[in-house]
Amino acid sequence: MKAPSIDDVAAMRRALELAARGEGFVEPNPMVGCVVVRDGVIVGEGWHERFGGPHAEVNALEAAGAAARGATLVVTLEPCCHTGKTPPCVEAVLAAGVARVVIATRDPFPKVDGGGVRALEAAGVECVVGVGEAEARRLLAPYLKLVETGRPWVIAKWAMTLDGRIATESGDSQWISGEASRARVHQLRGRVDAVIVGAGTLVADDPVLTARPEGARFATRVVIAGGKPLPKERKLWLSDGVGPVLVATAPNYPRRNADYLSTHGVEFLTATPAELLDELGRRKMTNVLVEGGAKLFGKLFDEGLVDEVWAFIAPKLIGGTGPSPVGGEGVALMRDALTFTEVTQESIEGDLLIRGRLKRAREGRE
Amino acid sequence: MKAPSIDDVAAMRRALELAARGEGFVEPNPMVGCVVVRDGVIVGEGWHERFGGPHAEVNALEAAGAAARGATLVVTLEPCCHTGKTPPCVEAVLAAGVARVVIATRDPFPKVDGGGVRALEAAGVECVVGVGEAEARRLLAPYLKLVETGRPWVIAKWAMTLDGRIATESGDSQWISGEASRARVHQLRGRVDAVIVGAGTLVADDPVLTARPEGARFATRVVIAGGKPLPKERKLWLSDGVGPVLVATAPNYPRRNADYLSTHGVEFLTATPAELLDELGRRKMTNVLVEGGAKLFGKLFDEGLVDEVWAFIAPKLIGGTGPSPVGGEGVALMRDALTFTEVTQESIEGDLLIRGRLKRAREGRE
Repeated sequence: MKAPSIDDVAAMRRALELAARGEGFVEPNPMVGCVVVRDGVIVGEGWHERFGGPHAEVNALEAAGAAARGATLVVTLEPCCHTGKTPPCVEAVLAAGVARVVIATRDPFPKVDGGGVRALEAAGVECVVGVGEAEARRLLAPYLKLVETGRPWVIAKWAMTLDGRIATESGDSQWISGEASRARVHQLRGRVDAVIVGAGTLVADDPVLTARPEGARFATRVVIAGGKPLPKERKLWLSDGVGPVLVATAPNYPRRNADYLSTHGVEFLTATPAELLDELGRRKMTNVLVEGGAKLFGKLFDEGLVDEVWAFIAPKLIGGTGPSPVGGEGVALMRDALTFTEVTQESIEGDLLIRGRLKRAREGRE
Repeated sequence: MKAPSIDDVAAMRRALELAARGEGFVEPNPMVGCVVVRDGVIVGEGWHERFGGPHAEVNALEAAGAAARGATLVVTLEPCCHTGKTPPCVEAVLAAGVARVVIATRDPFPKVDGGGVRALEAAGVECVVGVGEAEARRLLAPYLKLVETGRPWVIAKWAMTLDGRIATESGDSQWISGEASRARVHQLRGRVDAVIVGAGTLVADDPVLTARPEGARFATRVVIAGGKPLPKERKLWLSDGVGPVLVATAPNYPRRNADYLSTHGVEFLTATPAELLDELGRRKMTNVLVEGGAKLFGKLFDEGLVDEVWAFIAPKLIGGTGPSPVGGEGVALMRDALTFTEVTQESIEGDLLIRGRLKRAREGRE
């Protein structure tokens, strides 16, 4: 009845594919995928499709029906053993008569944290943990970070020219990247919980920061301001009905300006960038997108607050003295440069998108 | 006896492949490849292998032997009709009894310039010109530029971080790109006629600018200086026997310093960058490589003097205020940005190499 281990690996690969379909829809829950395998054949598939909806295991078991009895359930994350929005998955697995459960990685969520595996084993179900674990943890990194640190996963996105500038000397940045790249950014906005810019970008570009077309969720739009008042005439507060706006300020931010903008529905918060991330984590935000500018990126990278970079590079050249994407203190020596892992490259209609995750991102800089 | 035109195209593709093998070895001659086709089958191949050696047509005809009689000769550039280092190829083609000649593009070299085609047609050989012309002109662009403008093809190369910087705030740039990328630059140095840097780079980096290992040719190493004296202790003049060094200066460059460095074999020239390119063209240089820094690149791009860019992008991040690759005046508006054609991307052990040719490069900027 036991499937050979190569089947576990292949089945887990399929479960991971299914899991990824939940991206943007399930957070702050984890993306989870599941397949039920009987005699080396997949007899049921499922994934967690939306927050509040049934978990992956339940969907896969439902698809498998009676075939689940004595089968192997392959799931990307440890089944839950607590009642949240839905009953515990462990119960469903046991009720279906599954003989064996293959799990990519344990769920560090405090109410699970090994409890799912223990409950299954106590009921006589064989459990294998760790198949496809690296890939599962890569997929779940934002969820895992939120659970483990209380802060959301921070994606820094910029578009720069081939000579490394995000605007001309006069401040013009429309447009560096092409239409397809910008559409890609809108897709990204549509799956994150917050879109963040610095005060400089708000002043210079007057962005709306919404996802067009709408995505799976509506991001809170966030400005990280210092002590200087933000302009009253900005699309961010003048365009109604497109979601909440939050401004994080220094303690000396002028009260009158905050009071005025509050009448436009803007929420004010006194917080450093790190404190802001703590607060966004408390609000159960899993992914946040930072869109610049150079000063804000500098501060975030200096403090080790960024997890992932999306850099669009356009085959254009502007020269002069326009800004580079990342300011701040920076590093003095190349050997101290921040480095990346899982770097991918992608052509997007003439532009190039380089993505990577920061090494040491969560430890900060020595 | 006539081959169908699809065969001409396929044969020309092969001839172009052969032509490219001469890169670095044949300049200031053009790279040329040639195949002899009889009854749809290639019966001889050849290319111009080195400067002073036999031309592609002669090599291909020799390989074909008696099979050339009545055959089609497919060649990437119009056969020459003048005696240079070798006798005219037109004579060899006629002597071999070739019935038909397919040519990718005419040779603008004044002693040919259509004369090869006229001589062949006058002798009753059918000529087709224009098969694979775009690709041939792409391959021959440096040669064509030298013949048509008297200036060499200018390649600008830089290595930058993912945040668009070529050095840290403190000036450290060793190393931005990885070993494999640097090896690639040495290969490039080994096939060009000059390697050029600005005074700032000479002062900051003290480069040797040689190709290690040696390539097909030895580049003249060139410094574009202003009116300030260059340091006396630089590897460029203290390391003996690795090829000539040329310094282009402003008219007010201090005579004493020039006299001193001349004793180390350095040649001095009073010239603007554009005048320097004219002089390098007079010296029959086909390709020159500029390796920075930002000030020199700024000037060259501002004046429209660059033809091709090689940008290495390393997945590293340094922040701060280190320089971007291209300074100068630049452009004020994105719509005036310089743009590229024939952009290619290539992964080099973790780094990314983006190459492209400048649109409008030879017309300068409006």
